[in-house]
Amino acid sequence: MSNDPLVVFTPSGKRGRFPAGTPVLAAARQLGVDLDSVCGGRGICSKCQITPSYGEFPKHGVTVSEGALSEWNSVEQRYADKRGLQAGRRLGCQATLQGDVVIDVPPESQVHKQVIRKAASARPIIMDPATRLYFVEVEEPDMHTPTGDLERLERALSEQWEISGITADLSLLAKLQKTLRKGNWQVTVALHRDNGPGRPRITEIWPGLHETGLYGLAIDLGSTTIAAHLTDLETGIVIASSGMMNPQIRFGEDLMSRVSYAMMNPGGDAEMTAAVRNGIDDLTRAIAAEAGIDPALILETVFVCNPVMHHLLLGLDPVELGQAPFALATSQALHLTAPDLGLNAMNPRARIYILPCIAGHVGADAAAVALSEEPGKSQDLVLIVDVGTNAELLLGNTSRVLACSSPTGPAFEGAQISSGQRAAPGAIERVEIDPVSKEPRVRVIGCDLWSDEEGFAEATATSGITGICGSGIIEAVAEMRMAGIVDASGLIGSAAQTGTARCVPEGRTHSYLLHDASDTGGPRILVTQGDIRAIQLAKSALYAGARLLMDEMGVDKVDRVVLAGAFGAHISSKHALVLGMIPDAPLDKVTSAGNAAGTGARIALCNVAARAEIERVVGEITKVETAIEPRFQEHFVAANAIPHKTDPFPELSKIVTLPEAMFNAGGGNEADGGRRRRRRGA
Amino acid sequence: MSNDPLVVFTPSGKRGRFPAGTPVLAAARQLGVDLDSVCGGRGICSKCQITPSYGEFPKHGVTVSEGALSEWNSVEQRYADKRGLQAGRRLGCQATLQGDVVIDVPPESQVHKQVIRKAASARPIIMDPATRLYFVEVEEPDMHTPTGDLERLERALSEQWEISGITADLSLLAKLQKTLRKGNWQVTVALHRDNGPGRPRITEIWPGLHETGLYGLAIDLGSTTIAAHLTDLETGIVIASSGMMNPQIRFGEDLMSRVSYAMMNPGGDAEMTAAVRNGIDDLTRAIAAEAGIDPALILETVFVCNPVMHHLLLGLDPVELGQAPFALATSQALHLTAPDLGLNAMNPRARIYILPCIAGHVGADAAAVALSEEPGKSQDLVLIVDVGTNAELLLGNTSRVLACSSPTGPAFEGAQISSGQRAAPGAIERVEIDPVSKEPRVRVIGCDLWSDEEGFAEATATSGITGICGSGIIEAVAEMRMAGIVDASGLIGSAAQTGTARCVPEGRTHSYLLHDASDTGGPRILVTQGDIRAIQLAKSALYAGARLLMDEMGVDKVDRVVLAGAFGAHISSKHALVLGMIPDAPLDKVTSAGNAAGTGARIALCNVAARAEIERVVGEITKVETAIEPRFQEHFVAANAIPHKTDPFPELSKIVTLPEAMFNAGGGNEADGGRRRRRRGA
Repeated sequence: MSNDPLVVFTPSGKRGRFPAGTPVLAAARQLGVDLDSVCGGRGICSKCQITPSYGEFPKHGVTVSEGALSEWNSVEQRYADKRGLQAGRRLGCQATLQGDVVIDVPPESQVHKQVIRKAASARPIIMDPATRLYFVEVEEPDMHTPTGDLERLERALSEQWEISGITADLSLLAKLQKTLRKGNWQVTVALHRDNGPGRPRITEIWPGLHETGLYGLAIDLGSTTIAAHLTDLETGIVIASSGMMNPQIRFGEDLMSRVSYAMMNPGGDAEMTAAVRNGIDDLTRAIAAEAGIDPALILETVFVCNPVMHHLLLGLDPVELGQAPFALATSQALHLTAPDLGLNAMNPRARIYILPCIAGHVGADAAAVALSEEPGKSQDLVLIVDVGTNAELLLGNTSRVLACSSPTGPAFEGAQISSGQRAAPGAIERVEIDPVSKEPRVRVIGCDLWSDEEGFAEATATSGITGICGSGIIEAVAEMRMAGIVDASGLIGSAAQTGTARCVPEGRTHSYLLHDASDTGGPRILVTQGDIRAIQLAKSALYAGARLLMDEMGVDKVDRVVLAGAFGAHISSKHALVLGMIPDAPLDKVTSAGNAAGTGARIALCNVAARAEIERVVGEITKVETAIEPRFQEHFVAANAIPHKTDPFPELSKIVTLPEAMFNAGGGNEADGGRRRRRRGA
Repeated sequence: MSNDPLVVFTPSGKRGRFPAGTPVLAAARQLGVDLDSVCGGRGICSKCQITPSYGEFPKHGVTVSEGALSEWNSVEQRYADKRGLQAGRRLGCQATLQGDVVIDVPPESQVHKQVIRKAASARPIIMDPATRLYFVEVEEPDMHTPTGDLERLERALSEQWEISGITADLSLLAKLQKTLRKGNWQVTVALHRDNGPGRPRITEIWPGLHETGLYGLAIDLGSTTIAAHLTDLETGIVIASSGMMNPQIRFGEDLMSRVSYAMMNPGGDAEMTAAVRNGIDDLTRAIAAEAGIDPALILETVFVCNPVMHHLLLGLDPVELGQAPFALATSQALHLTAPDLGLNAMNPRARIYILPCIAGHVGADAAAVALSEEPGKSQDLVLIVDVGTNAELLLGNTSRVLACSSPTGPAFEGAQISSGQRAAPGAIERVEIDPVSKEPRVRVIGCDLWSDEEGFAEATATSGITGICGSGIIEAVAEMRMAGIVDASGLIGSAAQTGTARCVPEGRTHSYLLHDASDTGGPRILVTQGDIRAIQLAKSALYAGARLLMDEMGVDKVDRVVLAGAFGAHISSKHALVLGMIPDAPLDKVTSAGNAAGTGARIALCNVAARAEIERVVGEITKVETAIEPRFQEHFVAANAIPHKTDPFPELSKIVTLPEAMFNAGGGNEADGGRRRRRRGA
């Protein structure tokens, strides 16, 4: 047995013997221990910090004495003086092995750091982004071997980092020579290597050691809103999230009206493309300013979006998406640059990755949901519903995954509802109707109090109560059904039938008066018979899509349901079940995944292997086209009723008393655009 | 032995038996016979025309009877009616084998056509361009298998042409869907595959069969002139050549003055970049107009240029090239697009290839000369001299190739000469001085007569005699030396010493009066002592560079000398030898290669394998840096004299009577910009 010092790394448990004097970093590399370094062991980047342990380690069979590592050296002292070094920490590139030792690699020193996700059930994101920093020392030019500066940089990367065959855009070449000389032939490069075609590419270069970071944007480009998550590409931490209205809204509220705009107006698609690209530039500048970083440090961006947004972002006429057979120009994942998309706010050499589309109605956003929620890795049969103007549905388990989209229309978002409005302060978002008195109480966005609680009037004085948003109308209809105000066919009863004067006649039908501020000049907020019908159509479409996938899968029930999307995060599972939006499932098996599409974008941003994975997964998803499937229509008609028992059935009575946590299980709401709301129980 | 019909293809001699009914095209493909087809055998492109032969073929052991091929069919008749088909020709995709047959593939039906080069010694260019046309039938979209249009086009290319993994720019995607539908799912695509990184790329798409051609530009970007050769990428034929002054001239005549301009003026490099790019756009439009083609059909461009032009074209600050150690930003070959270079006149998806640079002073133009002249394949030791403001020299044979550049200055181009001017009508380009009478006669550009021939005055009345160009001053100095007007040290004698009143005093020295039109208000054209000194400096630099390479190679003499460059084509070999511009060599071993750099660009344009070849060759060339080599200075000083015998020595007397052909041997002047001049012997 060798007398060379034994080193045991924790938490990996990897161990080996190395000659005395071997730097800890070198030992870690030889053992495949995940220890970071940007400067390649030159003692300047401090990424390789480690913590030696001393004493008896029976578990590892090691006794570590003082002197197991070389003495604290001047490089470490200089670093500690300049930047500070936590007590007990050493630099792995400076400390050398002198005796047996146990060395802990703290999480922040690992290359493939795990990014914590809030939901305990969610798999962690392992940091392995496409763009990484490398510090290199480049040979000076020599007339006798007259290679170009790029070629000498290439050789340095090959010799110092074993990265070969690099390339660079002309705009990088244009700053290469000055930067090399400014850095006295020491530079940090950002190197992009993803799963796309082409060679590793230098996308940025800084003189000396670059220490102001490297950032990426995960952008969820929706028809209504654009949400961006600015992510530190070294740690994976989201340092700022920001959203804006999609500026294309002025061309049409929903997707089909934008496709129509493109069809009716020559150049209309180019107008919408310019609008969304400018919007993304504005959002990029705003989020960088919010985080206090230079937007030129944004070197990667991942987009997820539905097919129409996808085409309009890319500058492709979406007209084919407006008519059968809904042919995409391209469905594969795209590897682009910021200038390709006319984006000017981020680094001009930033690399763009756009997830693949699943079909003409099921876009890169659904692919991102699949990446985040991994239905194909689920042992039980999971239905994932991403509710928006169109709903995308995924049904699957380890054996098979199906996808479709359902034309729910905008009712779930509060549009086409008589008192409907977008989710904004003043909008009713929660509703309860007493089954005996038939009296309602509501909560509005921007206030944590119920309307029958003390202080409510004062708290809502500024916003007022202006209308009813998507989650509010769902709760209102479900509560009306449970209180017996609405029958199974969806008909609102008269005051006489229901025993409440809140049921007021409107022509031949009745409406339910949810809120009346007309005495103070405020609105009367009614749920009309038309509103009930709109919600019935939307929920029937959603339910029919789910049933169609279940037919295709040959099942009658699903094991669990995941509600995705920013909107999905705010829907009450109970009310969704009462309404029949989703197939029956135990209430505790109906969970919210938050903005799963945005999370999928973040995963693709932080982990390059996830890109290859989702490209493979999308190829294996079976697409079911609702538009041409006669059974969709059958299911749609059959789902029109609200078949749940008139009075709150016992099961639900029990469930409504369940603790708050139940309704947020598996939330993973870390990506909901920064808007967080406390729930007080139903 | 099989009874299947035997087919023998000529000129390849390839033969095989195939079942009766096999189309000739299919048989050719299986045998690897070089028979073209764009439409893949659908009888619409007519590229696969063949000529069957009938009768006895003892050489092939075949008797071909009528009926050896299937009967003339309606597809062929339709094609013949519509476009015409040469008598005896058949379409290889329509005619099927019925009996033994001998089939000739005419040159224009070969995929890898040979491009005829004028010089018999030059190797032919084999057509194998990076961009080719493919006709494909694409599957229509289907909601049940909702792939994108690009993905179905990809599958069609894979199934019909065995080309996989394609990609396309966004601007191509933007026209993909409309074009597929316009062509009723039949389209022609231009597909680019070179030796660079990345996947095969669709760079253009047309509905149906595209029949208006595919073109490429070979551009020789010089400091003074830009020459472009518009080439048919299907046949390799140069359909138009055109040149223009480099618009950067206003920033400085020579390279170093342009580098200085960049150093002295902030943004000066960007100004020069814009100027040359605009110039190339103008030239592209002009040459396309001259040839009567749509410039959008130009899908490939190859550039050759010296390092400073290279950097300024790319938008790179050339400042490092103006000072030791002359570091290039990059020396490798570049694969770019027209928009990368801000070029707007050609197709926006045109691919650009720029040959590699050899060193900071020896550019892609020298690489192109190496590609054209192939010193590394020469059995004898060849010195190739590309004369311009800087001279690039290549010396080598199969064992080794060396390269350097020599700072000749602009004297050889007529600059810094008292009566010097650019090569243009009116410039003296040929000089003879009678060794007895010391009287000169001259020829001027634009006139084929000598000044002592009848009609000369009339023929030159329009242009006049305005000055003396580069080849003229070389001949003048050499003739003055041979006539005893100049001594070995370069000193012009007095009238008394030389016996001619044409030697007139000018201060302390003398000048030789070459032409005097002062009586009619025209110029007096003198060769001054200063002119002799300028030519001595230039020729010493050139000679010293050659000697330095010979030292490095360890030789005292070279077997042959090739004068390259548009200017090189006009230098009289005899006078170059008399002057001592080049090392001694038998006169018949001093040849002109014409514009070898331009020819190298054409080769790289027409043959993709040549790109890989020159990249490999450049890596193997040994660069010799003249600026840091003390022996260069020694050789330079030693070469200052004009050591040849005062009177025309016998050897030269013999040689000047050699026939005209001798001076044009190996000319290869097909690429000299269309300017052709008759020589009448010296």
